[in-house]
Amino acid sequence: MTAATLTISSRNYSSWSLRGWLICRMAGLDFQTEVLSGTDATSRAELLHLSPSFLVPRLRHGDVVVWDTLAIAEYLAETFPAAGFLPGNAAERAHCRSISGEMHSGFVNLRSALPMNLRAFHPDFRVFNGAKADIERIVTIFDDCLDRYEGPYLFGARPCLADAMYAPVCTRFRTYDVALPPRAAAYRDTILHWPLMVEWAEAAADEPDEIEELEMEF
Amino acid sequence: MTAATLTISSRNYSSWSLRGWLICRMAGLDFQTEVLSGTDATSRAELLHLSPSFLVPRLRHGDVVVWDTLAIAEYLAETFPAAGFLPGNAAERAHCRSISGEMHSGFVNLRSALPMNLRAFHPDFRVFNGAKADIERIVTIFDDCLDRYEGPYLFGARPCLADAMYAPVCTRFRTYDVALPPRAAAYRDTILHWPLMVEWAEAAADEPDEIEELEMEF
Repeated sequence: MTAATLTISSRNYSSWSLRGWLICRMAGLDFQTEVLSGTDATSRAELLHLSPSFLVPRLRHGDVVVWDTLAIAEYLAETFPAAGFLPGNAAERAHCRSISGEMHSGFVNLRSALPMNLRAFHPDFRVFNGAKADIERIVTIFDDCLDRYEGPYLFGARPCLADAMYAPVCTRFRTYDVALPPRAAAYRDTILHWPLMVEWAEAAADEPDEIEELEMEF
Repeated sequence: MTAATLTISSRNYSSWSLRGWLICRMAGLDFQTEVLSGTDATSRAELLHLSPSFLVPRLRHGDVVVWDTLAIAEYLAETFPAAGFLPGNAAERAHCRSISGEMHSGFVNLRSALPMNLRAFHPDFRVFNGAKADIERIVTIFDDCLDRYEGPYLFGARPCLADAMYAPVCTRFRTYDVALPPRAAAYRDTILHWPLMVEWAEAAADEPDEIEELEMEF
């Protein structure tokens, strides 16, 4: 038994769970993952996108309890500075936190119209107009980073916090068959082939699917 | 002319502008404030609550450009560690970041149903049920902090990041005449009498009101 536990909801549906897990792995934390069952109110609400996932993910590490994805990231960045999942340069770190913050608080239309669902594929999905503006802004963010830091990840050679924050968006681009300019498409594929993402997607494929039953209930 | 500029939208209506400004002041930063006019698209959208305020507030400090409230906070916490607007203890800092993150990404019903409007007062305002759950969670957050750190601010004797994050909520509680339990009400009043809040509210009272004209336009 390890001294650290990350509580998540669904691997298939919960984008915040994915982000929190990526950050813990990037930090090199030794942790176990606890998946909330679909039978309690928090994870039901989360699974059905009825509430923001403000209490999941949650990390318990020794005496410290920390929830909210960015709070977990800052806690782990302080605790494991050698892991280097924030850029080393102050201006780049500020840029990384700015776009991570945009993802954290924004893109509401994208998140509600194109919910994460790793096992699904919807070719020729018709994207709601409100979500198109979000997609355009995200492509601009990708282009700006890939221009300045030369890829293949947003801030250069290694994945950082911002890649974890935008990773679920890359899965949505695939799930909903969103047409992207070539460079953004190449970045999406870099993320989908990131070994941690492959590991997560394999676990998500094996997850029992409680959501259909839940949708009947509500 | 100082080397730092904080760009905000409205002092009366923009809760994110208020948070960003409080954080810059708490950090002891020497900065000038630039207010976007109501005539450009970003600030119009912001003023009318049509979009998340993801590009406002924005801080330019020397060569660094940082936007998003939490990103500004983390940048300034790194740059001015002696200002101490994050708690000194690691577990308390994690707690402070967790509840700051909840405010940053959540409470959507509260934010849409009870928009910040410092100059308004609506006695006996009927609060939308969806916002009531947000208010209950916020009261729980306040109680938990006041229990553990003994007030008068959320993390003890001095205001910190979390107080800046929840300060606009305290103004909404007053504007919409929201009934609160005594301890949460006392905390609300502590925030409303915080000298930085008094200074901001005085500037907001003098702000030209462009919002009525804008609402006609959209």
